[in-house]
Amino acid sequence: MKDQDHDLPGALETARAIAEGRMTAEAATRARLERCAEREDEIGAWVQLDAEGALATARALDAGPVRGPLHGVAMGVKDIFAVRDLPWRSGSPIWRDRVAGFDAGSVALARRAGAVILGKTETTEFAGYKPSRTRNPVVPGATPGGSSSGSAAAVAAGMVPLALGTQTSGSVIRPAAFCGVVGFKPSFDLIETGGISVFARSFDTVGVFARTVPDAALGAEALTGLALQPLSPELSALSIFRSPVWESATPAMQAAWAEFEDQLGKAAPLARAPFSPGFVEAMAGIPELHARLMAVEASEALSHEMAIAPELLSQGLREQIESGAAQPPELRLADRLNMTDLRLRAMDETRAGDVWLTPATTGVAPPSESGTGDPIFNRIWSLLGFPCCTVPILRDAQDRPMGVQVIGRHGDDRAVLSVAHWLMERFGGA
Amino acid sequence: MKDQDHDLPGALETARAIAEGRMTAEAATRARLERCAEREDEIGAWVQLDAEGALATARALDAGPVRGPLHGVAMGVKDIFAVRDLPWRSGSPIWRDRVAGFDAGSVALARRAGAVILGKTETTEFAGYKPSRTRNPVVPGATPGGSSSGSAAAVAAGMVPLALGTQTSGSVIRPAAFCGVVGFKPSFDLIETGGISVFARSFDTVGVFARTVPDAALGAEALTGLALQPLSPELSALSIFRSPVWESATPAMQAAWAEFEDQLGKAAPLARAPFSPGFVEAMAGIPELHARLMAVEASEALSHEMAIAPELLSQGLREQIESGAAQPPELRLADRLNMTDLRLRAMDETRAGDVWLTPATTGVAPPSESGTGDPIFNRIWSLLGFPCCTVPILRDAQDRPMGVQVIGRHGDDRAVLSVAHWLMERFGGA
Repeated sequence: MKDQDHDLPGALETARAIAEGRMTAEAATRARLERCAEREDEIGAWVQLDAEGALATARALDAGPVRGPLHGVAMGVKDIFAVRDLPWRSGSPIWRDRVAGFDAGSVALARRAGAVILGKTETTEFAGYKPSRTRNPVVPGATPGGSSSGSAAAVAAGMVPLALGTQTSGSVIRPAAFCGVVGFKPSFDLIETGGISVFARSFDTVGVFARTVPDAALGAEALTGLALQPLSPELSALSIFRSPVWESATPAMQAAWAEFEDQLGKAAPLARAPFSPGFVEAMAGIPELHARLMAVEASEALSHEMAIAPELLSQGLREQIESGAAQPPELRLADRLNMTDLRLRAMDETRAGDVWLTPATTGVAPPSESGTGDPIFNRIWSLLGFPCCTVPILRDAQDRPMGVQVIGRHGDDRAVLSVAHWLMERFGGA
Repeated sequence: MKDQDHDLPGALETARAIAEGRMTAEAATRARLERCAEREDEIGAWVQLDAEGALATARALDAGPVRGPLHGVAMGVKDIFAVRDLPWRSGSPIWRDRVAGFDAGSVALARRAGAVILGKTETTEFAGYKPSRTRNPVVPGATPGGSSSGSAAAVAAGMVPLALGTQTSGSVIRPAAFCGVVGFKPSFDLIETGGISVFARSFDTVGVFARTVPDAALGAEALTGLALQPLSPELSALSIFRSPVWESATPAMQAAWAEFEDQLGKAAPLARAPFSPGFVEAMAGIPELHARLMAVEASEALSHEMAIAPELLSQGLREQIESGAAQPPELRLADRLNMTDLRLRAMDETRAGDVWLTPATTGVAPPSESGTGDPIFNRIWSLLGFPCCTVPILRDAQDRPMGVQVIGRHGDDRAVLSVAHWLMERFGGA
């Protein structure tokens, strides 16, 4: 993380300064637009920047009373969300010329709260696995991760203090961790999903990127009307859970994690992870189950695109869709029932307030040529619909960022954010 | 039900006749278009009929091999679904001039299976409570029910053998029951929801209208790739469950229901309903909980419309949105956690194969002036995400139809359809 990228005030600070008359929304917007002008050529975070529209919005905000908690806060929106009068390409040449005629519900809620939409951020193809053009702002030559590549990179480069993304397998947590920022994927369906290109309806979840946990919480509060600001966490219910996919972690992650466990053990009493051995065993099958269900649901959600222009889909996505469409009825049903059962069991195994920590990714951001990285540390929680927040508090030997993923049960979003904030305060200076 | 409305072959029969070369898709389509021409002035089921497009599709189907299980089957699509190049008004003047640039996922799946989209059917405002212009084809002067008014009426009048709708509170089961047809609302999220106007993301469920249960199952199979055709049901797990809202039933429904219980008791062993007294008590609070969550989620899903044109929303919908938007954070959170908990408990209380029967509505279709009828018998199951199928096997003294609602646990769609089919075969001739 380059410190000079973060000299601008964050979301909470900006909103407060404007509300107190110490800053104007226009000045805050201009400062972010300048940062975009400086860094965009190098990073490629934006499908389209809407400087003119953003400044007009900012001036209108300055002319009226404080609208809401995001009053004057610049925001990036992943290009699978509809934003009125802006391109809505969803990372696909099929929709190269599409312009949205309306705002997605979440975007309209952000506007209602006073957000200034700076533009549309790059996404992988339909938020799947085909990389966008975006470069990682903090790890030269590396992927920013996917699918919310532009949103993570824009926040990491200080272009915006807040950005919207979505996660179906690991599309919020992974890019946030790779770019060294905070990524919050709430409980499934906590944030409105209307007006967003669907990939897999059972998993698609709107999430938020920010530089700090309170900023991420602010964004989620504005979109849900819930109280989500971090509180002093109950550390007695905190545990380490290496999870059944631990072996997928790189040596760099395993080393950093072991050291983190040591340090954490000195700072907090560590409870036993809340899962029975039987459930941990069942969890081991989730990554594959998740991938199969994702393929089936993608084959349904993208059936129109597959019908009108299969040649404009990437080969990888086409193969994913075809494998989903080819799944026999018995396996489809068994997988759906299994998903429901695992969600029920996961709730049975956990109690309100339980929070556990796992690596956010297998390791640091891999080279761009290798794709967008492996979501294996995210699939389990995406399938269960559990809230996750990654905090950039781990480093490899080359000082590249990695994330600690904070997880709680469905509905425990505030507990997750509280622990995430505590971790940042305690270990974020490392 | 007027017998002359149902002289045309149903969905299964049509697909079979075409596959066997005994009929062409064009002839099947023409026959339905003629029926539309005869009845539409009286009923007003359609936002737009696309006769030309439907005939072109049918001719293209006739020129090629059998595409899928709906090959040549005419279908109506509720106007909250995007259908490429057709109006997409969602029952609101805000979208009076909107034309969809793509197909909703479910529509594309129907096309892939060979369906012939006849046009867009009338819906209440955004699938909420403000009535459409559609008239009940079988009960003069009465509402067809809402929100999928046009889809239910079009099937009841024989204009199409199959139609798509959605249910958020009671928008499939209620209109089907009022119009004397079969309505199937599957388990939550069983059918792809992309490309459909959202009202409340936790409840919106795509459903199917048909004249017979196997036809409804055929439609759902084509959209899910699951095997859903009715089997010989396990009647040992069948029960009557008057449910905590029984007192809302009209005297006509209560009388017909008592008689039905008697007859059913002679035809099948009736198990005890699978719910504990404690859970039945908890269920009594679901209708209000569902209404509150629906208002909150509608305030999020329709935030764009509320921002750009509040004056074009009906007063009722605006009040619903405002009440949702005004809900304090603590109540929002408590309601969401309560919903999750009730879903878990409902699964704990039931076993695979359990099926229970309740009235589909409070009674017969009320007069048009009174609105679209009360969804109170549907809210519990919509909140729980349980599959429901209504079969038109009850009558009041004036021979007006009422429905028996067949319900099972999440994922037990085929068990529900199996009992529904058995009921139609056993009691449908009454």
